[in-house]
Amino acid sequence: MQSDLLAFENFLGKDGVQKDDISNHITDWTGQFKGHGSVVLYPKSTEEVSAILAYCSRNKIAVVPQGGNTGLVGGSIPVHDEVVLSMNKINKQFSFDDTMGILQCDAGFILEELDNKLAKLGYMMPFDLGAKGSCQIGGNVATCAGGIRLIRYGSLHAHLLGLTVVLPDEQGSVLHLGSSIRKDNTSLHTPHLFLGSEGQLGVITSVTMTAVPKPRSVQSAMLGVESFKKCCEVLKLAKSSLSEVISSFEFLDADIMECLKSNLDLHPVLSKSTPFSILVETSGSNEDHDMEKMSAFLDECLSKNLILDGVLAGSSADAANMWKLRESAPLAVTRDGYVYKHDVSLPLENYYELTNVMKARCGDLAKRVVTYGHLGDGNTHLNITAGKRCEELEELMYPFLYEWVVAHGGSISAEHGIGQLKLPYSNLGKESEERLLTKKLKNIFDPNGILNPYKMI
Amino acid sequence: MQSDLLAFENFLGKDGVQKDDISNHITDWTGQFKGHGSVVLYPKSTEEVSAILAYCSRNKIAVVPQGGNTGLVGGSIPVHDEVVLSMNKINKQFSFDDTMGILQCDAGFILEELDNKLAKLGYMMPFDLGAKGSCQIGGNVATCAGGIRLIRYGSLHAHLLGLTVVLPDEQGSVLHLGSSIRKDNTSLHTPHLFLGSEGQLGVITSVTMTAVPKPRSVQSAMLGVESFKKCCEVLKLAKSSLSEVISSFEFLDADIMECLKSNLDLHPVLSKSTPFSILVETSGSNEDHDMEKMSAFLDECLSKNLILDGVLAGSSADAANMWKLRESAPLAVTRDGYVYKHDVSLPLENYYELTNVMKARCGDLAKRVVTYGHLGDGNTHLNITAGKRCEELEELMYPFLYEWVVAHGGSISAEHGIGQLKLPYSNLGKESEERLLTKKLKNIFDPNGILNPYKMI
Repeated sequence: MQSDLLAFENFLGKDGVQKDDISNHITDWTGQFKGHGSVVLYPKSTEEVSAILAYCSRNKIAVVPQGGNTGLVGGSIPVHDEVVLSMNKINKQFSFDDTMGILQCDAGFILEELDNKLAKLGYMMPFDLGAKGSCQIGGNVATCAGGIRLIRYGSLHAHLLGLTVVLPDEQGSVLHLGSSIRKDNTSLHTPHLFLGSEGQLGVITSVTMTAVPKPRSVQSAMLGVESFKKCCEVLKLAKSSLSEVISSFEFLDADIMECLKSNLDLHPVLSKSTPFSILVETSGSNEDHDMEKMSAFLDECLSKNLILDGVLAGSSADAANMWKLRESAPLAVTRDGYVYKHDVSLPLENYYELTNVMKARCGDLAKRVVTYGHLGDGNTHLNITAGKRCEELEELMYPFLYEWVVAHGGSISAEHGIGQLKLPYSNLGKESEERLLTKKLKNIFDPNGILNPYKMI
Repeated sequence: MQSDLLAFENFLGKDGVQKDDISNHITDWTGQFKGHGSVVLYPKSTEEVSAILAYCSRNKIAVVPQGGNTGLVGGSIPVHDEVVLSMNKINKQFSFDDTMGILQCDAGFILEELDNKLAKLGYMMPFDLGAKGSCQIGGNVATCAGGIRLIRYGSLHAHLLGLTVVLPDEQGSVLHLGSSIRKDNTSLHTPHLFLGSEGQLGVITSVTMTAVPKPRSVQSAMLGVESFKKCCEVLKLAKSSLSEVISSFEFLDADIMECLKSNLDLHPVLSKSTPFSILVETSGSNEDHDMEKMSAFLDECLSKNLILDGVLAGSSADAANMWKLRESAPLAVTRDGYVYKHDVSLPLENYYELTNVMKARCGDLAKRVVTYGHLGDGNTHLNITAGKRCEELEELMYPFLYEWVVAHGGSISAEHGIGQLKLPYSNLGKESEERLLTKKLKNIFDPNGILNPYKMI
């Protein structure tokens, strides 16, 4: 409504309210989700966020908080005509304590910018993901972003210390939760409730968290493995032998390797073709030590017949070639035409069984059924491709796939979240008492239900 | 009341209800806190906990959950006549996935028992504390226990995956929160709300968390340092040089060293007497590598004039002597007669300033003002001793000390929690919006306010 726009301009100035050319704020980057919002707001401070949320709460106007809009489940774009609350201009305040390793910054900072700032001080962010050039730290917290370093540094729960959040209540309450020190047991640890809350509880405007010392040495190796069972044995050995230096343990099956070759002309780094490939990375403070550990690990894998082949990257170019295979996998599958992406966790005994089950189930309707993922975290990105969108295939896949995952003790969303995409399945495996509790919690933070509706909760 | 006792016996059998000889359940181990409860209940299952809490909620009977009763703030004993709900008999179920490193166990398991079980499988618990022989994992979660390995493995937030909890509502609702896999983004991360909740929200009956590979090599070194500023520089260097292997960075000042000598006849391991001592520990998978890193670190400390003296433990007996100094500090101070213990966090620039401020303030009323603690976490255990309890000294100390800590950006409770001890100061530095939020949260979980009253919230 016109009066609402005037109110927003009153809070933010004319340049804080965008009405035209907003398509990249109401569509996600995959093009899969498209909303109908008509306005994007750009607050520049916590106080401006507070004014907007108080106004919207009093007037029952629905709001979608939006960081870098890099999500994969449609969580950061409007479903209907919600107002988009962009964090793009909340990116000024940054401070870092380089003795304690504690970072405090505005929520709109882009992950890669933070990593670059920290690198100059000998530190780095404890997580890394493909979208690092666009995603924002506030969104990372709101989605409890995972990525490739989780096996080493843990989830964001391991690092979060404090948050400034604005609640969507009639006062636009500003809360400073947690603290800026490493240990604080003086109240409920409420900042952690915002990790993975997907913009349901409040708008994060500032984040305080720990960073980790930047490793001086990063080593990579690619292993070829005959069976999935042996992949698990290699993982167990890696965790024990590479212990404190292991930083990634990534998995690719022969089908994604074939897809990389045919769709992107990317060739395996191992001379032999093997059913499974594993990319192991170490990060440490001493190159000689890490090389020695990695060599001993490879030797032990070979002597125990756990791997068919293995190569240690001798240069950063070698390592880049290995990582290019893993990092290009999401692009390679899109070249088939249409891709059904998945992001699920499973106990390791069922991790690859899912792939076999889906291959058998989809048959010729699927162009490819390929698997890559973070094996060390039990997180599989099973992708099923087709020439184009295919309803018959969809009916075979859903809800079967998610029901299978839950029946086998897994999670239907390992790191991408629920958003819009998985809302139809979000009750799977959840007990009614848990659902009731989350609804009660939502109601405390967002009594008028204006924040990010039609999603997650 | 007699009818309540009959009801409890009906739920638990006669051997599940103790009415006599309960003094060790209504008094804390330091003797500082004594309640007036008249009954201790020993449920053997989640279902029995549920029956008790449902009954108590309907009949408005206050309940104190109790694990190992090893806390230091009176959080696990009754204040008035609350029923004590002991977890001692909920300690049967234990399982461990040694590929993923995931532990699932009943809440009543003693920390040391778990550590011993995991050791046989090549793993260990990611935290360690003085009370490990008596404290229980459920209590560790409820207090977000810290300890000496936090600098390496992070807080319990880094490891918690799932909980079974029973709510103190009229149904005694049993909730299975979180999951048993490493990555799960399908709902609010409610298990983390129980970390540090001090028995205010529900009774934890089962815990799912990650363990860490047991290090094959543990090295210790004691350093003598001239100034507190140099201690901070040594910390910064240790984090960068010992990076992935550092597992402890403990601090002792000259006054606690003197106290150890005069009260326990324990002598420093360094030949020179220095104003400050630092105990550094590394834990890793390769002894040669760790020794080399530790030696290089000591050399760099010496060549940069950061330390006056330094010795690397050449044997486990040497290391034990070093650790005995640190671990005996809490005992040594008690021998002075009466001790005022503190557990606060501060930014490092104010860490030791607090000691100097309190020395000047307490003057001759204090027998000693000594400081030891987890410097790497910003956590100081400042202890002030006297021949006996002294009201004049107390008036000088409180609330001054806690107000000073909050004014300098610290936390009045780093790892011990609020309990009864710090309740008078628990609003310090907290905003009214935060207080209101925690009260609303408490009310969702415990609508009748029966769980652990007169404490924390």
